Amino acid sequence: MTRYQHLAKLLAQRINQGLYVCGERLPSVRALSKEHGVSISTVQQAYYLLEEQQLITPQPRSGYFVTPHKSAHPMPALTRPTQRPVDITQWDAVLKLLSLRQEKDILQLGSGTPNLTQSTLKPLWKIISRIGQQQDIRLFEYDNIYGMPELREQIARLAIDSGCHVTPEEIVVTNGCHEALSVSVRAVCQAGDIVAVESPCYHGILQVLHGFGIKVIEIPTDSQSGISLEALELALEQWPIKAVIVVPNCNNPLGFIMPEQRKRGLVKLAQRFDIAIIEDDVYGELAWEYPRPPTVKAFDSEGRVLLCSSFSKTLGPGLRVGWVVPGRYLDRVLHMKYIVTGSTVQQTQIAAAEFVRQGFYPAHLRRMRQYYQRNLEVFTAAVLQHFPCGICVTRPQGGYLLWIELPETTDMAKLNKQMRDNDIQIAVGSLLSASGKYQTCLRLNYGLPFTAETEKALALLGTAIEQATEVSLAEVAGR
Amino acid sequence: MTRYQHLAKLLAQRINQGLYVCGERLPSVRALSKEHGVSISTVQQAYYLLEEQQLITPQPRSGYFVTPHKSAHPMPALTRPTQRPVDITQWDAVLKLLSLRQEKDILQLGSGTPNLTQSTLKPLWKIISRIGQQQDIRLFEYDNIYGMPELREQIARLAIDSGCHVTPEEIVVTNGCHEALSVSVRAVCQAGDIVAVESPCYHGILQVLHGFGIKVIEIPTDSQSGISLEALELALEQWPIKAVIVVPNCNNPLGFIMPEQRKRGLVKLAQRFDIAIIEDDVYGELAWEYPRPPTVKAFDSEGRVLLCSSFSKTLGPGLRVGWVVPGRYLDRVLHMKYIVTGSTVQQTQIAAAEFVRQGFYPAHLRRMRQYYQRNLEVFTAAVLQHFPCGICVTRPQGGYLLWIELPETTDMAKLNKQMRDNDIQIAVGSLLSASGKYQTCLRLNYGLPFTAETEKALALLGTAIEQATEVSLAEVAGR
Repeated sequence: MTRYQHLAKLLAQRINQGLYVCGERLPSVRALSKEHGVSISTVQQAYYLLEEQQLITPQPRSGYFVTPHKSAHPMPALTRPTQRPVDITQWDAVLKLLSLRQEKDILQLGSGTPNLTQSTLKPLWKIISRIGQQQDIRLFEYDNIYGMPELREQIARLAIDSGCHVTPEEIVVTNGCHEALSVSVRAVCQAGDIVAVESPCYHGILQVLHGFGIKVIEIPTDSQSGISLEALELALEQWPIKAVIVVPNCNNPLGFIMPEQRKRGLVKLAQRFDIAIIEDDVYGELAWEYPRPPTVKAFDSEGRVLLCSSFSKTLGPGLRVGWVVPGRYLDRVLHMKYIVTGSTVQQTQIAAAEFVRQGFYPAHLRRMRQYYQRNLEVFTAAVLQHFPCGICVTRPQGGYLLWIELPETTDMAKLNKQMRDNDIQIAVGSLLSASGKYQTCLRLNYGLPFTAETEKALALLGTAIEQATEVSLAEVAGR
Repeated sequence: MTRYQHLAKLLAQRINQGLYVCGERLPSVRALSKEHGVSISTVQQAYYLLEEQQLITPQPRSGYFVTPHKSAHPMPALTRPTQRPVDITQWDAVLKLLSLRQEKDILQLGSGTPNLTQSTLKPLWKIISRIGQQQDIRLFEYDNIYGMPELREQIARLAIDSGCHVTPEEIVVTNGCHEALSVSVRAVCQAGDIVAVESPCYHGILQVLHGFGIKVIEIPTDSQSGISLEALELALEQWPIKAVIVVPNCNNPLGFIMPEQRKRGLVKLAQRFDIAIIEDDVYGELAWEYPRPPTVKAFDSEGRVLLCSSFSKTLGPGLRVGWVVPGRYLDRVLHMKYIVTGSTVQQTQIAAAEFVRQGFYPAHLRRMRQYYQRNLEVFTAAVLQHFPCGICVTRPQGGYLLWIELPETTDMAKLNKQMRDNDIQIAVGSLLSASGKYQTCLRLNYGLPFTAETEKALALLGTAIEQATEVSLAEVAGR
């Protein structure tokens, strides 16, 4: 074993034992050289080897960091929401978040917008441009209530990869996944009903339920394996729950992929208690694993699952091209679709269908997965470096959202104000709870380009958290 | 007075006295020449004079017909719907109508689609093409929840012509007028509430109410002056009505424009009974009168009117660019908008805003008004010529929809079948009633190009109606 191999082995042991953790930067080349009495180039070679082994990640001008998923940083424990149906609040906070969405000068650290700058999207621009030139009269006409047949054909093709065998006739096109969820909820629930959701739960789903006068029961959820089937079963036994809503693949905000066994278990529970499952698969194509994970719908033989998705997270939310595969609820979904909007823009449907039909989609997905996976490492490293100790961070298995539990003593009002003053938007966890839990959690979009500005913002956020925690502790002590 | 002037005067008297009515073709030139002992050219000159006076309209290869609005053809009387709140039915029939919407081989006599072939739409194609080429990243991004500021500015400018002075901040952009109506209903009503509507009432509105579990009370409506304020007042006294929905300008399907005095009266009633008014102005820009008629909103000082509209009937429904000016209900509407779709396609918003901003809209509206007004005359003449006597036909003051009352004995199932067999779609009046009234009425789209095919279809429809009536009468006699 050469000198540098020996050093590399030693460092690898330290990483695996968790001695380098919580975002600590690795010692500088110079420091290690002194410590071990070896040359600078030997240390550099050892670091190159560890980098090849993906144990460490270099950051320009900052040195080397332990690669996040190899490190043993603490992860959030199983959540413990209120175990009874509650009315949903938080609309004002959601509206505030939405209002910042188009402010160009504000860095959107908490948004759900995907990265839209990759070169693999270029063919879509060309297609859109060509459609505009062709003066296709369909651009001005009412859409078929089901959506355009050529788009539904492509969606049916893509669904095969997720284990779903559906025909175009079983698909209803919607204005993004948001409308898909909205019509699905309306198709299976009435005002006053109770619906079970993961906890935390995407705020869009909560607000849809709120708007229709539906109560929710939040089910404990694990940041690695998803909704607790045991807790869900207990809730189903105790309350007249009509449906359960899950984001089982690359969950928003926790990033988990439900193991297949648990997906099957969920379907069985739904059968036993005769409820519907509304499945939001909008991040499903962005899983690190290949082939992509199956949907819950793939295990559904009774048509109980309403599978909702869109191209919003893969191509762009501005297209507003989503869909629902409603199973046995097709008629109701169609009726609800007519009631809320009636018709979908055809231009963006044609564009999305062409992009997929011409074969550009797989290459684009590959690129996005690689980009997000790389970004996850860099963002996690930056978070572990800049944020105070004592935080828990998820290890997403896909998508581009990170969930961070801050110390419970963090003064969030102070943190929010400081971020606003610095033109940085953050998404506070309480948005993702019906009852305002997770007040000291953050959802972070790691799909943003990791520029100097982004890193500065994360560093600033980290410092602000530290201050907000200290002040809070000081106040507690002063009482 | 010359000979031909004398003859023209005589014919004009006959028309004004209603002697030529119900679509009877005027006598041929040869026949008149014989009858009055004058030369062929004298009769021709008399006809030219009457044509100049717009009393008669020539039709290629068919001769001369009395110009519809000058004739005294019978119009529908004040409607007499059920005077109590009812649950809405008819969804299956609406779905059937919608399913035919994209069938290219079917002549859509009953659809609500505007004519999209006029040359004044060309700049819109250019704008759409340019937007596609510019690779504007906003096309892929989430929209502002209010809609794009540049579009709302243009909408605010246009609103001035309808007597409304609103700021862009008071406008919420929606996926067409359909979503505008949907969020407005949800903003002011709950399941189980009662809403008053005109009778007949656009089926889209009825199905929105149906979908939200709202009952309706249909108010008698006059085909010249709109909803009966007297009947509405009685209903308001008797039932806990939450809102009234009206299409006061170029009503769908009756074509009336509510006189200003009645618009003011409606607002006063709403104030007295503390209810909201949902106003659908989607055809308002297509009124024959210039300047365009004011909206009910123009007389609303308390913010009680939710004004809904879109570019669907003027530019094209495929754009899905609508809006609502919700007055005091702004917060609720914004919340409901987030719940149903959350975001609107930006590409078509930019296109519509640019079309208006660059000044193309007034010329296009002028062209469409002229086109529809001319088509109204030709279609009405064809209807009066081909349909059996005893029908009543509206005299629209704008838009492109005609409402025809057939003899009450018409066998509509037979008529429907015969039309389907001939690939002609018709819209039966019962679609436009909550309780299935108006079964022997038809809504006709006179915005279609009046080609030989269209005339053949109308002739065929007329014959089919005649047969369906006779058979029905025969059956009655046979009982």
